[in-house]
Order: sequence, then C-alpha cells, then structure tokens
Amino acid sequence: METSHRIILLAHGSSDRRWCETFEALAAPTVEAIPGSVVAYMELSDPSMEKIVADAVAEGCKTFTVLPLFLAAGRHLRKDVPAMIADMEAEHGIRIQLEAPVGENAQLGLAIRTVVEQTLARTGVPTTATGSA
Amino acid sequence: METSHRIILLAHGSSDRRWCETFEALAAPTVEAIPGSVVAYMELSDPSMEKIVADAVAEGCKTFTVLPLFLAAGRHLRKDVPAMIADMEAEHGIRIQLEAPVGENAQLGLAIRTVVEQTLARTGVPTTATGSA
Repeated sequence: METSHRIILLAHGSSDRRWCETFEALAAPTVEAIPGSVVAYMELSDPSMEKIVADAVAEGCKTFTVLPLFLAAGRHLRKDVPAMIADMEAEHGIRIQLEAPVGENAQLGLAIRTVVEQTLARTGVPTTATGSA
Repeated sequence: METSHRIILLAHGSSDRRWCETFEALAAPTVEAIPGSVVAYMELSDPSMEKIVADAVAEGCKTFTVLPLFLAAGRHLRKDVPAMIADMEAEHGIRIQLEAPVGENAQLGLAIRTVVEQTLARTGVPTTATGSA
C-alpha cells in the first residue's frame, strides 16, 4: 500500500532479538490500524530508520513523522536522532517531523496505572492502606 | 500513610533532571491512585531502589512489587536488577516480586496507538491510504 506520508515508530534496537520482538508487539496496534506506519530502529537492528526512509523516498514519499518509542529523552533523542534526521532531510530533500518521545504523552502514564492495577489484581495484593504508622 | 506492601515503579535514572521529571510524570497517575506506590531509580538518580526498600523495611514492610518502567528488557532487567533484588531480599529478609517491564503489557501498545492518532490529528496528516504503487 502506498501512502503520501509515513509514520515511523522509532525504537533503539538491540542485538537481542527478544528486544525487537517487544517493540514489534508494542507497535502492532498502530501498524495494524494506521496505513503508512512502520517500526524502525536507530541502531543495531533491522530495519534501520535510514532504510525505511530511503525505501519510502524511492516510492515517492516526501514527508515523515518520527515518534520515538522511548519513555524519556536521553542523549539519543536530544542529539543523535536529530542529527540523523537532519542528514536524511538534506540527502533526500524531504521533511521529517520528530515528535517528543512517546513517554511524554499522558496516555502512557494512564496505561502504566492500568498495568499496576492489573498486577495487583492478579497477585492479590490489597490496594488500600491497611494501617498507620 | 503506612501500607503492608509497596509497589516500586523502577526507572533507570539519569544525571539529567529532565529524564527524572518525565518518569515522575509517567508515574503520577499510579502514585496518586494507589497507596504504597512510589518511583525509584536503578542508578544515577534519587531515590534509589535500595533507599526506598530500606526505608519501607524500617517501617515494617516485608513484601514489594517492582514494576520496571522500561519498554523492553535489556541487560539491566535480565541481570542487574535481579541481582540487586536478590541482595536486598537476603539483606532484609523480605520478598520482592519483579514484574515484566511495563512495555510487555498490551496496554502500552494501545496507548502508543492513541498517541499516534493524536499526533496525526494535531498535525493534520491523513491517516488513510491516498494512492497505490
């Protein structure tokens, strides 16, 4: 399927295949629902962000959104990824919008709360205060 | 408030204060809703997991759940954190349940899809296919 815009869900990458499987599962609801969305890796894993972009450019795509699948911004998102994006924009004559890391969106905090509630329900730990100091 | 069980939302930690602010925001819905839940850091930031555990033990707490605020498991979660937990269990005579990283829960993938939908709605990019190869 061809779309005029690509949404790249950018994960870090790892030599450990299990790492990538987790990110593929994290991305699956998006990839299934939103045409033009795809997982790519910053380093160590395939497909690389550069490969995804180059292939899309060859198909005529000119604009991209990169959503980092990182909970918070460290050196990679403050320096390395912006530099990679600037290089690709210059090389291909395209526009790439780098979004804030997904963990900065309030949706993630709400999802974490649900995970904690599920965990406590499963393990049977009471969630109400049971005494006082 | 005293609870019989603590839920530790474990983040990696960083010398960059902004990193910790993101994790505090991620944890806020949980910390506000669930008594006994708290953020702690594996390294580089305060409060450390060891400090949170030692303080809770001093207050009589004997069981803990650690939910890693990591999207996927790398070396830290496969090796370093289990070793830290084994040390604390032996030192304090307590039980600490280490959960899978929060990113392995399907809730996170659904939240990511919502973030992408919000991003596309904000930036005005169409989410339907607009052509064919």
